[in-house]
Amino acid sequence: MTKAMIKNGRPFKLVIEYDGSDFAGWQVQPNQRTVQGEIEKALKILTQKEVRVAGSGRTDAGVHALGQVVSFQVHSSLSFDELKKGLIGLLPKDISIVGMDELGEPFDARRDAISRTYRYVIARRSRAINRQYAWIPRITFSVESMQEASKYLVGEHDFTSFCKANGQTDNFISCVSDVHWQIDDGEIHFEITADRFFHHMVRSIVGTLMEVGRGKIAPEDFQQILKAKDRTCAGPTAPPQGLFLDHVEYGQNPHVFILNDKEQK
Amino acid sequence: MTKAMIKNGRPFKLVIEYDGSDFAGWQVQPNQRTVQGEIEKALKILTQKEVRVAGSGRTDAGVHALGQVVSFQVHSSLSFDELKKGLIGLLPKDISIVGMDELGEPFDARRDAISRTYRYVIARRSRAINRQYAWIPRITFSVESMQEASKYLVGEHDFTSFCKANGQTDNFISCVSDVHWQIDDGEIHFEITADRFFHHMVRSIVGTLMEVGRGKIAPEDFQQILKAKDRTCAGPTAPPQGLFLDHVEYGQNPHVFILNDKEQK
Repeated sequence: MTKAMIKNGRPFKLVIEYDGSDFAGWQVQPNQRTVQGEIEKALKILTQKEVRVAGSGRTDAGVHALGQVVSFQVHSSLSFDELKKGLIGLLPKDISIVGMDELGEPFDARRDAISRTYRYVIARRSRAINRQYAWIPRITFSVESMQEASKYLVGEHDFTSFCKANGQTDNFISCVSDVHWQIDDGEIHFEITADRFFHHMVRSIVGTLMEVGRGKIAPEDFQQILKAKDRTCAGPTAPPQGLFLDHVEYGQNPHVFILNDKEQK
Repeated sequence: MTKAMIKNGRPFKLVIEYDGSDFAGWQVQPNQRTVQGEIEKALKILTQKEVRVAGSGRTDAGVHALGQVVSFQVHSSLSFDELKKGLIGLLPKDISIVGMDELGEPFDARRDAISRTYRYVIARRSRAINRQYAWIPRITFSVESMQEASKYLVGEHDFTSFCKANGQTDNFISCVSDVHWQIDDGEIHFEITADRFFHHMVRSIVGTLMEVGRGKIAPEDFQQILKAKDRTCAGPTAPPQGLFLDHVEYGQNPHVFILNDKEQK
């Protein structure tokens, strides 16, 4: 199949939820079970053709998603309903469809995204139920200190101190538009919204905020770590199972109108 | 320490949470991984002796617990803290300790219980996250009809229609003191409190309530099914992964005072 043929296929937008526990992350890798790989496998069965899908962003092994957005184009005579029901049937239990739309124009889930929101869940006590969906640090920490330090994240910053160097990324500048905390007896949810996220960024931020929470770093020193642009200044990377890609925002694009007018369930 | 305690060992009350997904249920069975078996294994390592533990009730394979109560007595020179930390360390990740007390008198988690509350969780849409903690029926149903039918459960009834016959139980009479529904966009929680529960009772009730919800049985006919005392009249047994043993109540017993005065976390 040529690139031109892919370009001319019917464009779709898919919103999915997945449990990252048993995936080697989002991106296709040889001999590994990945989210992208499972979706492409299902689409190949349905359309009898190789289909390449794009996600709004990669997630690492063990990281979950509540609203990952996926774009792809297919050549198929199947109706929208047939494709959707086929996907629901063929995808494994740890991937579920939140919404699916057929669009009037091509759409790129990664390039067209204007912001992404990640959620990091920290459990306040040891637990058996839901243990795969949170970091359980088993230490005493002050959420108030973490909240205070997290205020320094908002705005445009160079996040080099919180990113894994990869030799591919020109710069680690990102604009964080919001950080939000939800705190109850059992769990702490830290939400962060930005235009760009880099490899390990949220997990490094949370790992460093936890160092603040347990008193190893003062909240005001968190800003110095950010300004240092040096990964060795920051704390450890928090574990993947607490991290969720929550949702992705797209700007209004008049070309990307929805062809299917059915309510998505 | 009384003579009885020296003979029988120091009595403990343990409250645990467990994820039933990977257990063949509560009760010890040869060559099976069970909750009781894991606790007894940990206590044997700590005390160097065979310890038999009692649970407030058995749970089937795949059924979870948020507050299962366990009683046991040990001969050990270990302090309360040593035993507790040892148990925390030795128990697998899918069993966690909610509370532990050393008592002044023997206590039987099963016989001393005055009521048990089970919770059954039904998911309103397909989902990947938390799929192991709910029944996902993938059909349209009316919660209002289910709520209406569930009112007939309250009171003392013969629950033969909702119990798996086992040849051991004299009668299936139970007094249901309360049924309670919590309903939100994503999940429906059905809670039922009674003095006794029988094998498959909650799951058969929920399976039959779902037949009401989907319109196969009228809410008022639910009462006739209860009165029929015939298992063949009721609906199918709902799957185990939606069921949680929520909590167990014990009457005030002046003999069962708590020896450890530390706050349990």
